[in-house]
Amino acid sequence: MHPPRQPVDLKHAYRLLNHGPTVLVSAAHDGQRNLMAAAWAMPLDFAPPKVAVVIDKSTFTRGLVEASGRFALNLPCAAQADLAFAVGNQHGGPLGVGDKFTRHGITPFEGQTPGLPLVPGCVGWLECRLLAEPRLQQAHDLFLGEVVAAWADERVFTAGRWHFEGAPALRTLHHVAGGHFLLPSDSVQARQPG
Amino acid sequence: MHPPRQPVDLKHAYRLLNHGPTVLVSAAHDGQRNLMAAAWAMPLDFAPPKVAVVIDKSTFTRGLVEASGRFALNLPCAAQADLAFAVGNQHGGPLGVGDKFTRHGITPFEGQTPGLPLVPGCVGWLECRLLAEPRLQQAHDLFLGEVVAAWADERVFTAGRWHFEGAPALRTLHHVAGGHFLLPSDSVQARQPG
Repeated sequence: MHPPRQPVDLKHAYRLLNHGPTVLVSAAHDGQRNLMAAAWAMPLDFAPPKVAVVIDKSTFTRGLVEASGRFALNLPCAAQADLAFAVGNQHGGPLGVGDKFTRHGITPFEGQTPGLPLVPGCVGWLECRLLAEPRLQQAHDLFLGEVVAAWADERVFTAGRWHFEGAPALRTLHHVAGGHFLLPSDSVQARQPG
Repeated sequence: MHPPRQPVDLKHAYRLLNHGPTVLVSAAHDGQRNLMAAAWAMPLDFAPPKVAVVIDKSTFTRGLVEASGRFALNLPCAAQADLAFAVGNQHGGPLGVGDKFTRHGITPFEGQTPGLPLVPGCVGWLECRLLAEPRLQQAHDLFLGEVVAAWADERVFTAGRWHFEGAPALRTLHHVAGGHFLLPSDSVQARQPG
């Protein structure tokens, strides 16, 4: 079955993150791969689209990002809450639970970036090229990236907009604490400023 | 009437932003004050709590932040959607609409930081000391701050947790585009990882 995944125009890539969802950071290098959860991610620029994400020194994923110069932000949905919480609480790699893709039975797919593992079942994906900022990474665990390709599940994101009506299991996750995630449901349209 | 505003333990300050709300950035210097909307804000560290926020060069608020070394992140709620959209679409200062507090009939209040204007009616407030990073500010419009005091509306945030049940007008705003904001309503609790 063809997944309902469509390319997102790069000018709309920031819209995937604009409402503040929790993401899964994935990366691979030299035969190793991993993923982790990150609630601390945001857009950084429109064109070219850039993102910022906090990746702790203790994570195995961080080494893969630094070595490969590539990472992906995958946007998990309500149906993946258990997965998002689990990969946020396990350390991967040889000193942890190993390859978290394998552990959770996930077969990643590739988008545009060769070798960059993307997580199926998510509702948005941002493939990023690391904008190396060694001092920022060291001092603040802050990683910047340029978005080189973006994708979204067309059932909930089209024409640069999220629309979750009628698809509750595909809503993005917004972590409060301890595996408790808020889900966007209602919405409000502000009046046009006078 | 005493507003239902309570101090937030600094160890829980990051929880105000963890689920990705849109914020209003406010600042003042030398008799001038302003506020603007920012969807691009996130926690940066736990202890001491730090935040990161993108503040464009075109904004009047930016100059006030740089000159005073202080800024606040105010978390507007559903009832303030019109205000959040308006202050995100107007330029303040002498070349714009002037003082946006005055324009919108807002009488700011002070928290712990003398002279730092906080927006009433919001549901969370983070008072921040700018961690000056001139190159980062210039190259990426990215501003880092240490949270020196935090407050929340106790009707929807207690013991380090958001709980919006029964208070739909006090839900945080999550901007999609064009004044359309998603509102957290439902939630999901992930299983404890095995």
